[in-house]
Amino acid sequence: MSKIKTIEFKDEKLFLLDQRKLPTDYEFFVCETFEDVDFAIKDMVVRGAPAIGAAAAYGVVLAARQFMKYDKEDFIKRMYEACNVLYNSRPTAVNLMWAIKRMRKVLEENRSLETEEIYEKLREEADSIFKEDLSTNKKIAEFGNSIVPQKAIILTHCNTGALATTGYGTALGVIREAFYSGKDIFVYADETRPRLQGARLTAWELAQEGIPSKLIADSVAATLIRDGKIDLILVGADRIASNGDTANKIGTFMLSVIAKVYGVPFYIVAPTTTIDFDIESGKEIKIEERSAEEVTHISGVRIAPEGIDVYNPAFDVTPGENITGIITEKGIVKKPFKENILKLRE
Amino acid sequence: MSKIKTIEFKDEKLFLLDQRKLPTDYEFFVCETFEDVDFAIKDMVVRGAPAIGAAAAYGVVLAARQFMKYDKEDFIKRMYEACNVLYNSRPTAVNLMWAIKRMRKVLEENRSLETEEIYEKLREEADSIFKEDLSTNKKIAEFGNSIVPQKAIILTHCNTGALATTGYGTALGVIREAFYSGKDIFVYADETRPRLQGARLTAWELAQEGIPSKLIADSVAATLIRDGKIDLILVGADRIASNGDTANKIGTFMLSVIAKVYGVPFYIVAPTTTIDFDIESGKEIKIEERSAEEVTHISGVRIAPEGIDVYNPAFDVTPGENITGIITEKGIVKKPFKENILKLRE
Repeated sequence: MSKIKTIEFKDEKLFLLDQRKLPTDYEFFVCETFEDVDFAIKDMVVRGAPAIGAAAAYGVVLAARQFMKYDKEDFIKRMYEACNVLYNSRPTAVNLMWAIKRMRKVLEENRSLETEEIYEKLREEADSIFKEDLSTNKKIAEFGNSIVPQKAIILTHCNTGALATTGYGTALGVIREAFYSGKDIFVYADETRPRLQGARLTAWELAQEGIPSKLIADSVAATLIRDGKIDLILVGADRIASNGDTANKIGTFMLSVIAKVYGVPFYIVAPTTTIDFDIESGKEIKIEERSAEEVTHISGVRIAPEGIDVYNPAFDVTPGENITGIITEKGIVKKPFKENILKLRE
Repeated sequence: MSKIKTIEFKDEKLFLLDQRKLPTDYEFFVCETFEDVDFAIKDMVVRGAPAIGAAAAYGVVLAARQFMKYDKEDFIKRMYEACNVLYNSRPTAVNLMWAIKRMRKVLEENRSLETEEIYEKLREEADSIFKEDLSTNKKIAEFGNSIVPQKAIILTHCNTGALATTGYGTALGVIREAFYSGKDIFVYADETRPRLQGARLTAWELAQEGIPSKLIADSVAATLIRDGKIDLILVGADRIASNGDTANKIGTFMLSVIAKVYGVPFYIVAPTTTIDFDIESGKEIKIEERSAEEVTHISGVRIAPEGIDVYNPAFDVTPGENITGIITEKGIVKKPFKENILKLRE
């Protein structure tokens, strides 16, 4: 298991490793209220679909602590409002909605108890979400490792490691597992503009683990793929539709097209909590547009002229047809996705 | 004509608009020696294949001024050395080699003259290269405008404007011409990592001209192309092989694949001086690898962990088969490229 602690709940506070400041600064952002957690998700102190889910669950726990002083009716009303705020903190990752739904269900089922007891129940549920994600990642990593060839050169995009989850990671978890199982792998990490999660976070995790790797600008990948220098592409997911269409970090779709044209295996790596069984295809996924400043400024330094317009979608949708398989904790899902994804629900 | 002055030779000095500092600072880098010009090309004070060619030609003029004090034999020897240094200042752009070859020919043909007279001949030749590029760009822009539909949404990569040439530009010159001819166009400008020529320079030129546009991260383009939001892609070139294979800024190849898959016209816009008739295909083009710092730092700010490895090729090669046409000052070259490019030599 990786030693990186992304999320920790202790002393009634949520400690989040501040991912806006990595790799130059290693600091924790301390949340004492659910509003702090809402801010931390929006501002990307914590990011990565599974990590957002766990952080939001603890946000509900913090809300319960805040509202314990109110009478029951008021407490319940305020708790539902807090759940709504957290549910809407970011629009694309489905794990966030899934985690809040679980927390809301616990709230619902225990509303007859004292607020102190409800708090305890919520705390237990958040701990479960946290621990399940960790064990899920380990299972994903083992399934994933089965398709990693010896001496594989792997391309990855964005950050899907310990920093994007409660530990170990999804796509980067498979890479960790392959490395620790003794495979002589090499990783190319896309820097992933505009937020540079690849440069700031994935390169940092790879360096921490000592996994041989090189950082590249996002547009270098196409040439590497064409020239036969990539054996396998592993990326994460923010939401997977019933037909396999997958929303993930902007740039994923581009890679999937190049991979398809040049016949390189392209896998999505994600827990089944990332699957949104309620939607038929990627067309129903809302894509978050983020601020122009993410493109015009880097670390506070302006890199583009003042007053220009920017289009900054955070994610794109890769059609199922471009995906070789989806690596989950229940096994590797192959085509036809519509049929095989449904089986995961059972 | 655009009002941006990228290159100006006056008072025996070469004034280069310092493109490392745009868009936040508008400063001129003054070259008094050929070594200054060599540095300016290497460090990308001046960039863009046609602009590099013109700057290098004036570098030879500055060398002649420096060496005028030596006797003829010594002068000629030192001049050839200076030509060699400038010829090798960057490896991919063929206009640089072409400009130096022209200057060397003038040196050769006039070696019987006094050094002062040779200086004058070289000065005239550099001025010709400068002026020819400007009128070439205007012709390119007119040919190019013929294929720009009314209300076209155009995608461009890197900077191919007044800043990349002696004025007006190549791909961005076509965009200028379309705009000034009254077409209601809209431009998406790729930011173009790692050097951000799109964000820093193209967005700046578009803003100066008032051409409606949006800046995007490089990996956003694929989704726009798939969703039918791009009518036309116009990019420049650093070297074109006899079969149409084209070396251009890293990221161009990626765009060409997506454009081909989704049937969007993809044009190279370049003067015929960018064609290297001596090479049969893109396989013979040397791709410059630049420093890791271009990827790990932005405006001096570190964005990636210390000690990591980086792969940073400055260009990629787009195969002729992905290219719809090559817009030159002699007309638009269509397939079969091998046959039709040869005709340009006549």
